[in-house]
Amino acid sequence: MTEKNVHPVLIAGQWRPADATQTFVVENPATREPLPGEYPISSWRDCDDALKASAAAAVALRDTSRQRIAEFLENYAARIEARREELVELAHAESALPKSPRLADVELPRTASQLRQAAAAAREGSWALPTIDTANNIRSMLSAIGPVIVFGPNNFPFAFNSVAGGDFAAAIAAGNPVIAKANSSHPGTTRLFAEEAHAAAHAAQMPPGLVQLLYRTGHADGERLVSDPRVGATGYTGSRGAGLKLKAAADAAGKPIYLELSSVNPVVILPGALEERFDDIVGQFCTSCLMGAGQFCTNPGLILLIKGSTTEKFITAAIERFSHAAVGTLLSQNVESALGKAIATLRTAGARIFTGGTSGGGQGYSYSNTLLGVTGEQFLAKSEVLQTEAFGNASLIVIADDIPQAAQIIDTFEGNLTGCIYSDTTGNDDAAYDKLAPRLLAKVGRLLNDKMPTGVAVSPAMHHGGPYPATGHPGFTAVGIPAALRRFAALECFDGVRPHRLPPLLADAAPSGKPWRLIDGEWTRGDVRPK
Amino acid sequence: MTEKNVHPVLIAGQWRPADATQTFVVENPATREPLPGEYPISSWRDCDDALKASAAAAVALRDTSRQRIAEFLENYAARIEARREELVELAHAESALPKSPRLADVELPRTASQLRQAAAAAREGSWALPTIDTANNIRSMLSAIGPVIVFGPNNFPFAFNSVAGGDFAAAIAAGNPVIAKANSSHPGTTRLFAEEAHAAAHAAQMPPGLVQLLYRTGHADGERLVSDPRVGATGYTGSRGAGLKLKAAADAAGKPIYLELSSVNPVVILPGALEERFDDIVGQFCTSCLMGAGQFCTNPGLILLIKGSTTEKFITAAIERFSHAAVGTLLSQNVESALGKAIATLRTAGARIFTGGTSGGGQGYSYSNTLLGVTGEQFLAKSEVLQTEAFGNASLIVIADDIPQAAQIIDTFEGNLTGCIYSDTTGNDDAAYDKLAPRLLAKVGRLLNDKMPTGVAVSPAMHHGGPYPATGHPGFTAVGIPAALRRFAALECFDGVRPHRLPPLLADAAPSGKPWRLIDGEWTRGDVRPK
Repeated sequence: MTEKNVHPVLIAGQWRPADATQTFVVENPATREPLPGEYPISSWRDCDDALKASAAAAVALRDTSRQRIAEFLENYAARIEARREELVELAHAESALPKSPRLADVELPRTASQLRQAAAAAREGSWALPTIDTANNIRSMLSAIGPVIVFGPNNFPFAFNSVAGGDFAAAIAAGNPVIAKANSSHPGTTRLFAEEAHAAAHAAQMPPGLVQLLYRTGHADGERLVSDPRVGATGYTGSRGAGLKLKAAADAAGKPIYLELSSVNPVVILPGALEERFDDIVGQFCTSCLMGAGQFCTNPGLILLIKGSTTEKFITAAIERFSHAAVGTLLSQNVESALGKAIATLRTAGARIFTGGTSGGGQGYSYSNTLLGVTGEQFLAKSEVLQTEAFGNASLIVIADDIPQAAQIIDTFEGNLTGCIYSDTTGNDDAAYDKLAPRLLAKVGRLLNDKMPTGVAVSPAMHHGGPYPATGHPGFTAVGIPAALRRFAALECFDGVRPHRLPPLLADAAPSGKPWRLIDGEWTRGDVRPK
Repeated sequence: MTEKNVHPVLIAGQWRPADATQTFVVENPATREPLPGEYPISSWRDCDDALKASAAAAVALRDTSRQRIAEFLENYAARIEARREELVELAHAESALPKSPRLADVELPRTASQLRQAAAAAREGSWALPTIDTANNIRSMLSAIGPVIVFGPNNFPFAFNSVAGGDFAAAIAAGNPVIAKANSSHPGTTRLFAEEAHAAAHAAQMPPGLVQLLYRTGHADGERLVSDPRVGATGYTGSRGAGLKLKAAADAAGKPIYLELSSVNPVVILPGALEERFDDIVGQFCTSCLMGAGQFCTNPGLILLIKGSTTEKFITAAIERFSHAAVGTLLSQNVESALGKAIATLRTAGARIFTGGTSGGGQGYSYSNTLLGVTGEQFLAKSEVLQTEAFGNASLIVIADDIPQAAQIIDTFEGNLTGCIYSDTTGNDDAAYDKLAPRLLAKVGRLLNDKMPTGVAVSPAMHHGGPYPATGHPGFTAVGIPAALRRFAALECFDGVRPHRLPPLLADAAPSGKPWRLIDGEWTRGDVRPK
């Protein structure tokens, strides 16, 4: 591909023409018009070259101080902020997400903040859980795992971008080089990020393979990539179908792969709460479900209510709001058609349409704000298909006969990222809560009380993960620093290794950054004390 | 199976006849005579019943305090000690491992100690890494993952026993029920343990599915077991072939499985060290390789030396010791034949026999103490097949031309549990160490200096794990408390959950046991401080 309008890829520290026989273009989803420029679909040769450079970078990074990695991340964050206007313009054109507040005032600052938090974690070192047993002179810590492949999702062009988002920040902060596979719906935004990452890496004299970018590969090459012997691990956020294929390939090669797949994020609203805070809850639900056209991993896609007149009122009020709210633009034609298909699947399984159910209604690719409903009995009869994720501005209301049936329904849930329970404040719902909460907790990564799941704070205590098939392993989180770094790490142990050969984090003297270390069973920021 | 001499299985709190159409018997490997009793090969119905009871136990355990779980483990440890003589007799008969010191004075005390350490970890709670973000009121911790299947190996009838060893202790301490699959070479020993575990569980009024025992299943049922939706995770220690089949099944179902497979545990002896401490190193190597007939996961199976006259002398001295040392009894006919097969494979790939290479020579199943050798060039030409694990009293010496060739050789190594480097104390080997150590570290879980790998201390800093294919994930350790517990855990997060509904480990008040908790970025044993 040497045509002028085909964008080059970033391999081994150089922007160079891709080895590709095919290209793709991107549409502005709000206008359905193609955006300028073509992006290459790389051959295996590009992948192989990237892997070579990444493997060399992984070796070089072993001798790169945590401080320098942190400086790179901070410099990169500053460069992103400096190029903010261009990033926001292009991301808006590629995704139709609102420039303000969403892209400019929420997602871009969050992205820069994540990079800075990752930098702080890298500089400080506690994330590695350094552990020292002085009696046996055995010392261990988490350390870089090797080249990390990152596949970013379509719905966060900044905060989960494969070359700037959470997985990227975590993988680099843990000491690994990254090969980013751009999401095909925002390759231009990804290119701008990669330009800044490349410039920051160059300025910091990082190894040339630290950050690399491919726009797309064939499916077989993607599977080969995540299972290549040179790879350390993979982070993937996206559809279940593609994710499970990559997982199968990585698993067969013994390569860790961290997935964040689909989730319907059940919300249980108990009768007392609905009586007590009706308007508030209706408002929270509709806002959470329709915000950003519902294109969030943690969108409330399944609302579990108990039969009764207040529930009828709730549905009426939600229909009212759904039908009058503006219809957002979806991220792409694919998202529109997938949403239509998912809603057809739910209908075929017996769900009735309360409102919506037709494509269009907004600017460009769009689908009417859609609310569906089933009885508890219907749900139990077809619980698997009725958990089909309808990614977008749609939600399924399940009306259980009573609390015991609600418990049965929860027991059929697949793994989800989140589960919420609204209960009243005077104790009327407490017995129901106690019955349902342990069941729901077993099915989700994060249990919420009295709020919708769409906010995902970048907090050390956050868990953005959950049981399969929401993710591939229930022990890891994709959001939250420092825990997210631990996905991209191997445990390293030094047994009787002479003092001057130990990595700084495991030396007797407290390392720079004064990280927390578990020394003889006590967490401390201090030195190993002489005995 | 209702024949009198067929041992019952332990399912749902009852010793009951297995649902089985086949049985197996065990030989005393020292006499090649069958031991009394037959053991059933359970059908899927037994597996299904065990899964049902285990799932119910997992729910009940959520309401069981950490203290009670700790008491169960401690009571069990005491019962094991009380039954020590019978356990040692039967394990000796089934494994031919020496009664003293090995079984009675080393492995049994270690087993009881592991259970007590696991109890202490459960009671205290720090293992769960409780993390509290007061500003966002988000709180998370590791928590029980659900029913755990444990497959124990043949080589540690006590310390890695599926119903008493490290995986068992870790899984229970993390709050999970265990379904133990006995190793087929010591079902009787496993039965004695299960009797004590059952009695201890009954005394502590634990749910009936807390500890269950199946002796064996068909291969297809084993794969179905680890991938069943009711399962939380699996711990497997054993051969690579069987382990990878179970991994494929578990992976496809999205179920975590932790493997400890084969490892040749490379030992690099640098020229200066050999000059400086010749006799000592020869002695350490021969003792480590021949101890317990070499049947350790961390047996030094590959010794990398640099060509020269001292290396020739080392080989001569090792041959001398190997050929004069008593030949140990192997664990079973299978182990003897697998060892013979592995040595034939190495020979076919070009390795020459320095000494040994014939079956027999000891009491019962045995194989002569065997030392093989190849040049560095030979190794590089067939590095994959020359890394075939010869499980038992055998080791392959690789003689590299020089340090650069040794580096090349190390770069071809598969993932291993351990890697050792011996270097001199006056600095002559330092340049070589600096060149080789980072390469070796990338291939192993634990790097040792100046000692053999066979000691595996139960230390919080221990890493008994490593890169694939030594294990299935490089971030987890099978030995070392509390880290080993984290394999059998899911991350649980509470977002805005009302205070009285939080689990004790995440409450404002410091929980009993005063565990370390990461509160707003600081590790503390104290309360959440009011703001």
